[in-house]
Amino acid sequence: MLQGKTIVITGAASGIGAACAAEAKSLGARVIAVDRNEPPAGLCDQFIRADLSRAESIDAVVGDIQGRVDALCNIAGLPPTRGDVLVLQVNFVGLRRLTLSLLPKLNEGASIVNLGSLAGFGWAGQVDQVRALLDVNSLDDVAAFCTQHGVDDARAYFLSKEALIAWTLQMRWQWRARGIRMNAVSPGPVETPIHQDFLQTLGERAEEDMRLLERAGQAEDIAPLVAFLCGEGSRWIRGVNIPCDGGMAAHILCQSAGLD
Amino acid sequence: MLQGKTIVITGAASGIGAACAAEAKSLGARVIAVDRNEPPAGLCDQFIRADLSRAESIDAVVGDIQGRVDALCNIAGLPPTRGDVLVLQVNFVGLRRLTLSLLPKLNEGASIVNLGSLAGFGWAGQVDQVRALLDVNSLDDVAAFCTQHGVDDARAYFLSKEALIAWTLQMRWQWRARGIRMNAVSPGPVETPIHQDFLQTLGERAEEDMRLLERAGQAEDIAPLVAFLCGEGSRWIRGVNIPCDGGMAAHILCQSAGLD
Repeated sequence: MLQGKTIVITGAASGIGAACAAEAKSLGARVIAVDRNEPPAGLCDQFIRADLSRAESIDAVVGDIQGRVDALCNIAGLPPTRGDVLVLQVNFVGLRRLTLSLLPKLNEGASIVNLGSLAGFGWAGQVDQVRALLDVNSLDDVAAFCTQHGVDDARAYFLSKEALIAWTLQMRWQWRARGIRMNAVSPGPVETPIHQDFLQTLGERAEEDMRLLERAGQAEDIAPLVAFLCGEGSRWIRGVNIPCDGGMAAHILCQSAGLD
Repeated sequence: MLQGKTIVITGAASGIGAACAAEAKSLGARVIAVDRNEPPAGLCDQFIRADLSRAESIDAVVGDIQGRVDALCNIAGLPPTRGDVLVLQVNFVGLRRLTLSLLPKLNEGASIVNLGSLAGFGWAGQVDQVRALLDVNSLDDVAAFCTQHGVDDARAYFLSKEALIAWTLQMRWQWRARGIRMNAVSPGPVETPIHQDFLQTLGERAEEDMRLLERAGQAEDIAPLVAFLCGEGSRWIRGVNIPCDGGMAAHILCQSAGLD
């Protein structure tokens, strides 16, 4: 289903990114992994080491990618424990820089898939702060933004995912003339190497999610949806944020609408 | 990907239902078509003629299905031109009756996919009327409901899709112990045999959608997402309504949040 396609996957060395790489490979894609750490042997066809919090590193990635790209999966992301500035840099501002820089190398009909989060679900209720972050164009300006807006580590994580989802919707028709679409996938709690970091920062809120679910999600639960969005079967889906969370988003929507 | 699976598809004789049947067949599924009209030769493995506005007809369908079922795709739907009562009966009350009656025949891990619509996007803003319709359990009570709530033909169509989406979210965990999930796919304007009926009833609103999109959707744009939701790759997606509309839902969300 992804035969002959070249797919760039950030965060491919572990967690959901690694599961996406394995899924894409199993469907026949050529996978270019972008990560701080080297992925397990055989998981990808090319590995580019990068630090998505640094502009020079991001620009070097774009230079290192040879040939055309059919899909970009922005999976790399940091948990709140890594600190407000790094979280906003890697999860949103750097991600957006990589995406915009890669656009000239994307083929007609290419797909961009962003890893959102249930944590970004409330973006519309925070739209003023989200808009302010959308206006931060340089990675160097993120620290000042955090100070100015009183953003702490936990808020930075939520805000990074809110902004990513809002940007995904905002760009619904941006590259339509080239047939390029962008969508987001929003997992709930997933057992990955950074899962404990979330529990540490989010505390009771994360534990409440786990009481409602019968199990935590696995990286392998998320990868098939990301792979589907990379392929041609998703050509008419644009600017959509798809929850993949065992029902948590539906639960929140029902509760807030008074359906239960 | 759907090899060895048995999939029941309502409305399979034409439009989006026929495209879903063709997609499921191409992925290896055994397709049982349920429709008022006979589908084209070769499109399905079994055909059951039914009128989803009549309880006896729905119950006969369930009796006619031999063996176990892995997925139910509720695609059949009437346009507003068919009249308020029939629209609510077929698009929601009858659909729900078929689904609940089929549940004992569904396998562990089965998937239910409902065809929503961009027209149902505003369900949360109409939640009182939606809740009232969710309480209508008999097809015979639909006519009285329409009178009591002053529902006309156009409103009936919107309400039928609002209720279908709300019910999909509400049932997020209803059959979780059996691993059965239900999700919805919501197309925007799609060129099908009933497309002209929509333009006739909805007038300017439908024309505005077409000005914003560069083309109408095709049934073949919708079918791959329905097929993906039928397969095991969607096991962690529950109670989700996925727009498949060329970006229309994103456009509405951005406008209402003041993002543009």
